[in-house]
Amino acid sequence: MPLIVQKFGGSSVADVDKIRRCAERTLEERRRGHGVVVVVSAMGKTTDSLIVLANEANASPSRREMDMLLSTGEQVTIALMAMVLETMGQAAVSFTGGQIGMETDESFSKAAICAVNVERLRTALAAGKVAVVAGFQGVTPEGDITTLGRGGSDTTAVAVAAALKADRCDIFTDVDGVYTADPRIVPDARRLKTISYEAMLEMASLGAKVMHDRSVKFGAMYKMPIHVRHSHRPDEGTIICGEDEQMEKMEITGVALKQNLGRVTLTSVPDSPGVAARVFAGLADANITVDDIIQTVTGDGKATMSFTVEQADLADIRPVLDRLLKEIGGGQPRIDEGFCKVSAVGVGIRSHAASAAVMFRALAEAGVNIANITTSEIKISAIIGKADGEKALRAVHGAFGLGSEQEGIIKRD
Amino acid sequence: MPLIVQKFGGSSVADVDKIRRCAERTLEERRRGHGVVVVVSAMGKTTDSLIVLANEANASPSRREMDMLLSTGEQVTIALMAMVLETMGQAAVSFTGGQIGMETDESFSKAAICAVNVERLRTALAAGKVAVVAGFQGVTPEGDITTLGRGGSDTTAVAVAAALKADRCDIFTDVDGVYTADPRIVPDARRLKTISYEAMLEMASLGAKVMHDRSVKFGAMYKMPIHVRHSHRPDEGTIICGEDEQMEKMEITGVALKQNLGRVTLTSVPDSPGVAARVFAGLADANITVDDIIQTVTGDGKATMSFTVEQADLADIRPVLDRLLKEIGGGQPRIDEGFCKVSAVGVGIRSHAASAAVMFRALAEAGVNIANITTSEIKISAIIGKADGEKALRAVHGAFGLGSEQEGIIKRD
Repeated sequence: MPLIVQKFGGSSVADVDKIRRCAERTLEERRRGHGVVVVVSAMGKTTDSLIVLANEANASPSRREMDMLLSTGEQVTIALMAMVLETMGQAAVSFTGGQIGMETDESFSKAAICAVNVERLRTALAAGKVAVVAGFQGVTPEGDITTLGRGGSDTTAVAVAAALKADRCDIFTDVDGVYTADPRIVPDARRLKTISYEAMLEMASLGAKVMHDRSVKFGAMYKMPIHVRHSHRPDEGTIICGEDEQMEKMEITGVALKQNLGRVTLTSVPDSPGVAARVFAGLADANITVDDIIQTVTGDGKATMSFTVEQADLADIRPVLDRLLKEIGGGQPRIDEGFCKVSAVGVGIRSHAASAAVMFRALAEAGVNIANITTSEIKISAIIGKADGEKALRAVHGAFGLGSEQEGIIKRD
Repeated sequence: MPLIVQKFGGSSVADVDKIRRCAERTLEERRRGHGVVVVVSAMGKTTDSLIVLANEANASPSRREMDMLLSTGEQVTIALMAMVLETMGQAAVSFTGGQIGMETDESFSKAAICAVNVERLRTALAAGKVAVVAGFQGVTPEGDITTLGRGGSDTTAVAVAAALKADRCDIFTDVDGVYTADPRIVPDARRLKTISYEAMLEMASLGAKVMHDRSVKFGAMYKMPIHVRHSHRPDEGTIICGEDEQMEKMEITGVALKQNLGRVTLTSVPDSPGVAARVFAGLADANITVDDIIQTVTGDGKATMSFTVEQADLADIRPVLDRLLKEIGGGQPRIDEGFCKVSAVGVGIRSHAASAAVMFRALAEAGVNIANITTSEIKISAIIGKADGEKALRAVHGAFGLGSEQEGIIKRD
């Protein structure tokens, strides 16, 4: 019997009526003769309300107790989903993370999955039941409840699908798939039928908020096709799969825009081994997330180091930099605000050096000045002024011919 | 180190401020050098809200899913309580029923406790932590979450106290102890310093709503002193303990009033072995709770059987009776509404036959007509018309001299 794992996010299960609509998607698969495991998040704003309660109790609650608290959200949803399925004549049984042996390490609030024991799930499925599993949560070997952090329920779904060797993992969400660009910014953005795990990871890290990268990495590791679909629309969505399984091969998959970046430039830092390592280790210790890094050597035994950070982290960065530069024996910091990053992603980047030229020409024609450039195997990014972000995204999207040509929409502004 | 188990009910932990006040009671015991385990219920109306959600999902939800849902209520409270204790400088760690091995049978929604594995509790206590335990919930050997039904959190507290061989189990509630009578009806009712398990069981079954009888039975079984105290008042409360440990010996412990009773009389039923068993088994099958039973033999091979039931059960009882009388081969049913029961409880009942005379004289002087009389080792009950209930309670309370004489309150109306 083919086996499908379906995951419904918080906004899809925000109330009992919405849970009922999700349950209909489950019944569709059952009618096709498929076994189904359903993974659900906490209902709507439940997690937020629990966080408010926690903050009333303790300004800095322990992570273990926070996980104990937050994991109740998903537990409520699984019980209600199982109850709803029963009213529709479908036998169902709910399981907490602990009950399906979703074993994690002890990193409360951002635990990593170590193992999944699918015995109880297999028994339920063999009995013709739909198994309803709490997303986002696991349990340590000692029996403490953990949560998986951001994107946790997606990760649960992919991990359960991988452990059960399911045929597919459907992620139902409030968007109907992965687009060549954010359709709110680029009106002729087109939905992708398929995207490779690698391209999806780049798109996710570049600001496309469809899926958290952890679950995509899990999918890639276990070669589990992930089907991103809208909860309440019959659209086909987007299948995230291996490059070799993609039906449509695209040189450039899509373009992405990451907003609210600041840029730090360190000039005249000593050009000696270990300097970069000490700088970035120091930033990590201060909980500052560094995005792209560029280093150039000026030839006089000194180097220039530049990197982008979240705008929000700029406020705290100056004393950290001063301390680090003193440690490494010199250098001047310069901090600039008001950047964003436009990127093109796709396998075409690695095979065609010309892609970079296409992108830079498009930006030039749109009058966009480029502050920094970084590239990887399958992406090119340009750091630009924040006022130019949306214009640049549309220009690059158009230049790569990603728009819905069949609909004849005029590209670029 | 002396060990205390403290239990706080739902109204005592209805919000974070109230949880903080409960935590202060915990710190008082810690400052005295006591180890403390805290057992909590769900916050205020949480359980009611979850039941509303469940009914939206399914008009008759499975008991397993209901327990999965309801057990989240206590899980929220334990996390918050642990967080609050930490802000007060007291290390704390929370545990679900499953995490402390509160093993039950599989009777979802009214599970019976089979075993408690206190290893994790002992480890936490040895580390100087307060252990915060979710009341009302357990786990089957297979790992399914169960709830213990009415009075469940009290039962958890007494069971944990017994398993840990604690020195005392404090039940904090919204009354400040056990009284000689309901103080809302009998103004000069006096708080008892101690009451025996047996007398408390009689008082509970007779309508004194301080503690559910299950937890008192547990206390009696394991000889665990149960201290009933008000959550937010420093009063001494009442200690429920073995008769031999009572500090004040009272012939009559208290009087109780049970309202809303109906009476069923079955006349001319065959006086042969097994008849009563069949009647009451049939009533139990129909989920009708039978209170007192009286049977008299009329001498012609026929018997008269009389029993009281909750007024609410009268509506459904007629067809059940007709069927049962047919089965046993004869008898006429008579159903009367509008009764209540006034009872006196205490060890004096068994040693002094005179107690009955005192009670009946008091009722006669108050102009109360007695419909039925039943007695046990330590109680005398009179079934009377419902309009006479409160007057009768005050009369009997006064006749046994239970009032607060030192305060000179005039007894009886």
